[in-house]
Amino acid sequence: MKKINLRELARLVNLSPSTVSKALRDSHEISAATKLAVNKVAQEFKYTPNPNASSLRKKKTKTIAVVLPEIADNFFSHAIAGIQSIAAAKSYHILIYLSHDKFEIEKNIIADCSSGRVDGVLVSISDKTDNAYHLQQLHNDAIPIVFFDREIENFQAVKVITNDYECGYMAAQHLIAQGCRKLAFLSVSHTLPICTKRANGFMAALKENKIETTFPIIYCTGTELEVYNQIKLFLGKSETCDGVVASVERLALQIYLAAKEMDISIPNNLKVIAFSTWDAAPILNPSLTTITQPAYEIGKIAASKLFDIIEKKAPLIDDSIIMLPSTLIERDSTK
Amino acid sequence: MKKINLRELARLVNLSPSTVSKALRDSHEISAATKLAVNKVAQEFKYTPNPNASSLRKKKTKTIAVVLPEIADNFFSHAIAGIQSIAAAKSYHILIYLSHDKFEIEKNIIADCSSGRVDGVLVSISDKTDNAYHLQQLHNDAIPIVFFDREIENFQAVKVITNDYECGYMAAQHLIAQGCRKLAFLSVSHTLPICTKRANGFMAALKENKIETTFPIIYCTGTELEVYNQIKLFLGKSETCDGVVASVERLALQIYLAAKEMDISIPNNLKVIAFSTWDAAPILNPSLTTITQPAYEIGKIAASKLFDIIEKKAPLIDDSIIMLPSTLIERDSTK
Repeated sequence: MKKINLRELARLVNLSPSTVSKALRDSHEISAATKLAVNKVAQEFKYTPNPNASSLRKKKTKTIAVVLPEIADNFFSHAIAGIQSIAAAKSYHILIYLSHDKFEIEKNIIADCSSGRVDGVLVSISDKTDNAYHLQQLHNDAIPIVFFDREIENFQAVKVITNDYECGYMAAQHLIAQGCRKLAFLSVSHTLPICTKRANGFMAALKENKIETTFPIIYCTGTELEVYNQIKLFLGKSETCDGVVASVERLALQIYLAAKEMDISIPNNLKVIAFSTWDAAPILNPSLTTITQPAYEIGKIAASKLFDIIEKKAPLIDDSIIMLPSTLIERDSTK
Repeated sequence: MKKINLRELARLVNLSPSTVSKALRDSHEISAATKLAVNKVAQEFKYTPNPNASSLRKKKTKTIAVVLPEIADNFFSHAIAGIQSIAAAKSYHILIYLSHDKFEIEKNIIADCSSGRVDGVLVSISDKTDNAYHLQQLHNDAIPIVFFDREIENFQAVKVITNDYECGYMAAQHLIAQGCRKLAFLSVSHTLPICTKRANGFMAALKENKIETTFPIIYCTGTELEVYNQIKLFLGKSETCDGVVASVERLALQIYLAAKEMDISIPNNLKVIAFSTWDAAPILNPSLTTITQPAYEIGKIAASKLFDIIEKKAPLIDDSIIMLPSTLIERDSTK
């Protein structure tokens, strides 16, 4: 059976469309008898409101956007599960947008979000994003925004993050305690705060231990294959390196693949620690020492904060920072 | 600067809203001079059309939905990359909806898709979905739908799948060739065609080789922890089992974790082969033999077929099946 629209429903019950609309929205202007009659016919003919027309009227889309760089990273799949746990309780849809770590795509996504398609935005920025002009539009349009994990430091919004500086420090201290003296930190961005803070913490530990290395910070960018080749090049040049920190999960995969290809034994010749929430860490060869972020919790709290703003329990613009600590889990890759 | 709406723009140029709207849409009814004037002011005041109002008018959302059971599985992240490659070329947004393998959530998602929010739907059904009534609504509303990977057999739509039956057969033959005689197939669903076809192929190989086992098909369902416990229970009971096929990627992770916990040596005491596109397969301990699906290609072709229907180059209802073969990649877990 074809669905009917509001106009057709109004004709069936012999009322004006605006009266029918009010009856369906349980308006006090309409009598109980009329409401009953309208709802009965609406049900019989399976009337459902057009969601675009409806969102124009109510200004509520019952939808939030989650803007992410990628989904292959386990951090994001766990964070989405946390977000979903809150959104489901509010009967909200989640729309997942992927920037693929491209600033241009992220700008387009945010422009789309800022034009009334969603009630709020959770964002983890791309590793190329170096300014916040595109996000300003969300503020201008009074659309709530909360950052999770990957934030922009000089933009006023709630940020749910982890203790990146301390963890970078902790990772370096762990490698040093395990006997490494030629350390490197593999980064994916010069600007992303999660990377720069982790790198700064790493450098602080090196300084404290009076350890000098030629190239302490190595930048790996591009496709998976490009990153793999950059890592191979680095590991090939520097017999110097005996301990490495992977600043994001996907670098750990490429380090393992490159070491396997080059017959570099982990942990004997190279110790590896990675920022990662990888379920497979315990069953890798060798099992991977990780700094594990509370990804599910980060997603859950970020979503709660966003709904506080949507429901006007919190101000639109608020730059509080919520920091959830990560945990070092020692396994065989740093033995 | 606050953005202006159509009515405000019309006032600024001293024309009616409908004339302005036509001018912006480059209608032949409007003179070149008027179009130029309207566009100049629109640009100056950063006018952008309300997407909901605009989609009501044009009936085009420039958006497709991708409905998935989960994103933690690498198959889906590769498939999304393939879908994205096509959608980006068409300047379409992708909205990713997750059913979390729950039939009720999938029904809600499809209801949302069928009410004008998107121009087309790519779907990979949940492992609980056992009928297609909810999808019928998409046909009724003339919204194109294409299945990828996880389809419903008795529903008329284009299906982009892999050769599941042959792969189930191939997996069993491989284990038998490697010396296994007590085989099991770990499934996640009684109804999902990818599972039943793989299981049927597996059973055909057992029959052909005159191999009888007590519990050839084991069903693992629920949370990760529940699946882990089911696998532990099974591996504990049956010293009988010497070779196992994981019908989906996440089962392989739990088999490895359970075997590690129980000191069952893979491949010496238990050989493992998994349907998986896991990048980490080569660096697991031991490296994992896989039946690898062409996930990126499946996503790409499914998206192309969907746009053929959206652009009316193909009929709305068409039950052709496109089958892309998977590949067995032998590694240490079946040595």
